[in-house]
Amino acid sequence: MQNDPLVVFTPSGKRGRFPVGTPLLTAARQLGVDLDSVCGGRGICSKCQVTPGYGEFPKHGVKVARDALSDWNAVEERYKSKRGLIDGRRLGCQATVQGDVVVDVPPESQVHKQVVRKRAEARDIVMNPAVRLFYVEIAEPDMHDPSGDLERLRTALFEQWQLSDLQIDLATLQGLQPILRKGKWTATCAIHLGTASLRPRILKVWPGFHDAPVHGLAVDLGSTTIAGHLCNLVTGEVVASSGLMNPQIRFGEDLMSRVSYSMMNAGGAAEMTAAVREGMNTLFRQIAGEAGIETTDILDAVFVCNPVMHHLFLGIDPFELGQAPFALATSDALNLTAAELDLQLHPAARVYLLPCIAGHVGADAAAVALSEAPDKSEDLVLVVDVGTNAELLLGNREKVLACSSPTGPAFEGAQISSGQRAAPGAIERVEIDPASKVPRFKVIGSDLWSDDPTFPEAAATTGITGICGSGIIEMVAEMRLAGLLDGSGLIGSPEQTGSDRCILDGRTYSYLVWDGRAEGGPLITVTNRDIREIQMAKAALYSGARLLMDKFGVDKVDRIVLAGAFGAHISPKHAMILGMIPDAPFDKVTSAGNAAGTGARIALLNMDARAEIESTVHAIQKIETAIEPRFQEHFVNASNIPNAVDPFPILKTHVTLPEVNFNQGGSEARQSRRRGASGGPGGRRRA
Amino acid sequence: MQNDPLVVFTPSGKRGRFPVGTPLLTAARQLGVDLDSVCGGRGICSKCQVTPGYGEFPKHGVKVARDALSDWNAVEERYKSKRGLIDGRRLGCQATVQGDVVVDVPPESQVHKQVVRKRAEARDIVMNPAVRLFYVEIAEPDMHDPSGDLERLRTALFEQWQLSDLQIDLATLQGLQPILRKGKWTATCAIHLGTASLRPRILKVWPGFHDAPVHGLAVDLGSTTIAGHLCNLVTGEVVASSGLMNPQIRFGEDLMSRVSYSMMNAGGAAEMTAAVREGMNTLFRQIAGEAGIETTDILDAVFVCNPVMHHLFLGIDPFELGQAPFALATSDALNLTAAELDLQLHPAARVYLLPCIAGHVGADAAAVALSEAPDKSEDLVLVVDVGTNAELLLGNREKVLACSSPTGPAFEGAQISSGQRAAPGAIERVEIDPASKVPRFKVIGSDLWSDDPTFPEAAATTGITGICGSGIIEMVAEMRLAGLLDGSGLIGSPEQTGSDRCILDGRTYSYLVWDGRAEGGPLITVTNRDIREIQMAKAALYSGARLLMDKFGVDKVDRIVLAGAFGAHISPKHAMILGMIPDAPFDKVTSAGNAAGTGARIALLNMDARAEIESTVHAIQKIETAIEPRFQEHFVNASNIPNAVDPFPILKTHVTLPEVNFNQGGSEARQSRRRGASGGPGGRRRA
Repeated sequence: MQNDPLVVFTPSGKRGRFPVGTPLLTAARQLGVDLDSVCGGRGICSKCQVTPGYGEFPKHGVKVARDALSDWNAVEERYKSKRGLIDGRRLGCQATVQGDVVVDVPPESQVHKQVVRKRAEARDIVMNPAVRLFYVEIAEPDMHDPSGDLERLRTALFEQWQLSDLQIDLATLQGLQPILRKGKWTATCAIHLGTASLRPRILKVWPGFHDAPVHGLAVDLGSTTIAGHLCNLVTGEVVASSGLMNPQIRFGEDLMSRVSYSMMNAGGAAEMTAAVREGMNTLFRQIAGEAGIETTDILDAVFVCNPVMHHLFLGIDPFELGQAPFALATSDALNLTAAELDLQLHPAARVYLLPCIAGHVGADAAAVALSEAPDKSEDLVLVVDVGTNAELLLGNREKVLACSSPTGPAFEGAQISSGQRAAPGAIERVEIDPASKVPRFKVIGSDLWSDDPTFPEAAATTGITGICGSGIIEMVAEMRLAGLLDGSGLIGSPEQTGSDRCILDGRTYSYLVWDGRAEGGPLITVTNRDIREIQMAKAALYSGARLLMDKFGVDKVDRIVLAGAFGAHISPKHAMILGMIPDAPFDKVTSAGNAAGTGARIALLNMDARAEIESTVHAIQKIETAIEPRFQEHFVNASNIPNAVDPFPILKTHVTLPEVNFNQGGSEARQSRRRGASGGPGGRRRA
Repeated sequence: MQNDPLVVFTPSGKRGRFPVGTPLLTAARQLGVDLDSVCGGRGICSKCQVTPGYGEFPKHGVKVARDALSDWNAVEERYKSKRGLIDGRRLGCQATVQGDVVVDVPPESQVHKQVVRKRAEARDIVMNPAVRLFYVEIAEPDMHDPSGDLERLRTALFEQWQLSDLQIDLATLQGLQPILRKGKWTATCAIHLGTASLRPRILKVWPGFHDAPVHGLAVDLGSTTIAGHLCNLVTGEVVASSGLMNPQIRFGEDLMSRVSYSMMNAGGAAEMTAAVREGMNTLFRQIAGEAGIETTDILDAVFVCNPVMHHLFLGIDPFELGQAPFALATSDALNLTAAELDLQLHPAARVYLLPCIAGHVGADAAAVALSEAPDKSEDLVLVVDVGTNAELLLGNREKVLACSSPTGPAFEGAQISSGQRAAPGAIERVEIDPASKVPRFKVIGSDLWSDDPTFPEAAATTGITGICGSGIIEMVAEMRLAGLLDGSGLIGSPEQTGSDRCILDGRTYSYLVWDGRAEGGPLITVTNRDIREIQMAKAALYSGARLLMDKFGVDKVDRIVLAGAFGAHISPKHAMILGMIPDAPFDKVTSAGNAAGTGARIALLNMDARAEIESTVHAIQKIETAIEPRFQEHFVNASNIPNAVDPFPILKTHVTLPEVNFNQGGSEARQSRRRGASGGPGGRRRA
């Protein structure tokens, strides 16, 4: 043994001595080195490519001679001439150990390779997909020892791959016999490897060696849009992405109106279930077409969604989610099949739904937790998924708390007089000159500020059509900063502000942003009613965060992550001036983009992540804002801009908020507080 | 402890001391006494009724005082007044121990009660159904600790019944929420308890306490008929039975022609699959209607069938079963759902298919093995399921061998000139006077012999229409006994036999049984060609048995069991004269009736029987007659009546077979042998 050659694998550094003639793949397996193989060392799949190093390796204490490995052989020669092989590469199943050697396993030959995420603070994804391919040679039927084709296939998978207890769907079994014969008793099986609570399963069988990647889908099923990402389950690469409006929109724009639809119309829930499943199938065909594969090539899928979509997708009436105590039919993660959900993927394809956290903190929030991993954070992080219903997570390694808060649709530009969805022509960036009180802005579709001489020309194609969600946040914050708006949310009169852009509008004032009427465009103003809507929305968000901080026993957070597509466009400074998020260093407020979608992709690519998020969700402490007495108090305080009681010391090192008070009689301020306390968060529960 | 009262349960004899105040149900559970309860001791279900005994019990060394149990209580009073309670009975969950007591658990209060089978030699069935009811109280949803309704139901089932790892179908989950609320957070669950390889599962949930038995179906899916037995899964009782012609008959009378149909017609297999499933649904509706239940009340089903029906039922093309090596797609037992088989039972109902033994020894033969249990027999038993393809099992406690043999349809009256199915008017019993060579017979529908003076009147309603399978066996055997037929199978001439009932018919002779032509009826004869058909069929059967005896290393068997509906009508004496079955004492040849159907029923009523037959089938040694060289030799010898070489010593103590030889040139005899050896068993494989 001592005299056997030494084999060192990099980058793992795993090493061991092996008899002369041992294939490198065998050595790798015995050492537990992550070296891929689909064909099991038969020189067919070429997944086990390695790069031997020659010469001195002082770090490993090894000198590698030129003849440290067996000569290039016929199998390698054939493979190279047919498919090509990078110079210096060998097939691990063909090259055998002849002397001490250092062998590098390139990333593409590793099963558990890392998929790098773009954001610096995000963990890389380690590939560990649920579905993998295995090539087998199956014993032919023998009349002297009769057994089923399936049983012989199972035996082969056990003997050649140590896979046991394999289940199979009837649909897969139905097609098995001709496939095994076509492959002359060789086949490639796509196996779902199973989990602690899910038995492994033969999903699909191809005749002979099947040389094509396995695909999976990560789906973010939102109330408004359904976004799907088709992933190569070997490389982790996103092969195609596409989105679709949720066809349920015709039954109601927001979730509550869909719940109502199901309550008012017999069969309404079933109708919505059929609609969303049909929409998904359209989306899947689109994505598969884009990637040049068949939808039946898709063998695994992971879904994330909010609780109402979760139930409607599953065919469960969301009735109970429309009223306290907001009881979910089921909160645990679900393992289902494409067939039982009417999804036109491979009929045996598996569908995994992440667990829901609570009655209105869904699988989408769980996916955000998986992506942003507050439970693994050293510092205290607040993760906010901003939407019509905001989900908030606060935590660190010690514990994680979660709640949701009914922000309403104001941040999406709805219920704002000049509000609109984020689309070309929408005002998305605003600055107001504190002296002149004149705004300048940018619209989506142009990079120019509105005071640029070439702006009119540039904006001519899109027009200036309204204010989107991130625009309204900046607008209100800038108005506060410019002294146009007081802490209670009142817009000042021209006299109080010294600006004739403050226009009397009924009993309150509006701020004139843009008058496009001369060119046939709109008159864009911010009314005091708009301010009220934003106050309510931001107060709901902030008081949810504040409640979590109470429960955690802290007064500040170390960092804030804004999740969701909308979150990516929010200016931290303005959000903080508005008092929408807690006080924090600006550079500690980052955007995670579509973290729910990323979470779905992580769960798709890494099976262990599913177990991980299931246990994380169990450990998350759920806070129900609706029944927390302090929520109302926080809400009232948070109606002020930025806040009636919280001091925002970090913010105040950056900006000075004018000490103005436009309330001459005091009645408006009281009215505002009353509205906040009663009509506020409760009335809009999950709107 | 020592001074705690002693509780003795009968009939188990289990005993233990329990503190005063312990409910009898609790005591029973702690001792592992088989005492039923659906409600878990809440005084709702009354399943735990027991009969306390009072006075001296010398056998148990106990004297039971009148106050050994707590007084009759309000719950028992209410139950008795509403539902009635047999005198002397107590509810085990209400009556508490006060002193030493002897308590009898009547059979109806036992979960694992025995279902007595009529036949003396058959084992009783011990009730141990896969599906049982459990009543639970579920925690209400709590906003402070949100969880899904399903998760709380699972917790309740674990805490109240120690049931863990419970799966649920999507269809059941979809309806869960309103049921739990309707039952005010109490529910009754039908649970499939699972097996080593099958996880337990919530099948159906009813609001509150559901007081109705659970039903299951045992189905014998034959090539010709489908027979279903609806069983009460609590009592084991057969509640309703019904049969239906297999609708696949329109695609081909026998299995081989159905396999051909699928080969000749694209989509033919799928068409036959749809037909048989549709037929089953018709049958199930019929049976459920008869029992006054809904088909959706049926929660478990067990199917037995031959391999071709097995594949066609599952939607697997039977192509491979039509040719060597007769490879099954799968041979192991299958656990499926009603939904995936398009069966209109409860959508979550489980369907169990017994394992197949080999490519033409199917799940029906496995069911016969379960019913007749050759593997548990002290003596060596040959079990013969007679059909167009006969399945044979030979074994005892040491080992069991199995094979099938292609008998063809002659035993069903097909390919016999005057043959017909067993129906009124068919000759089923025959005696031929050895002196006069005149036959007398009985027809189905009358108990009179044909020489009874009142026979013509009695037979007038049915007519005398032909000869059924059991009739043809007796006919040929009686012809041999009366010296009308020689050992080689030749019918003698009038000169050779001294009977003018032997009529020249081409180159051979026919025997006149009945001439009904004067009354417009048929001329019923037995032609020499009929004899040849019967010779081939019985030779196939016997040589299969003989081959198993060779492999077992024996020359005789201790007993013979004839299975199948046809088997019940066969006269052992005549079958033995024919040389259809091996030599054995007449009283050791018994009929098991529809043993395959019984096997299905056993597997339905006792979950352990499923594991048992799966392991038995694995252990059975399969013999493929088609590739056994000695099969041909046995076949040729068995073409003789009774046999060219085997001596049948026991038979010969009962009857004397005339030493006749009607072959004058010797050519017929040789021709007969040749035909047997070549055109015989091989050509008719699985016909």
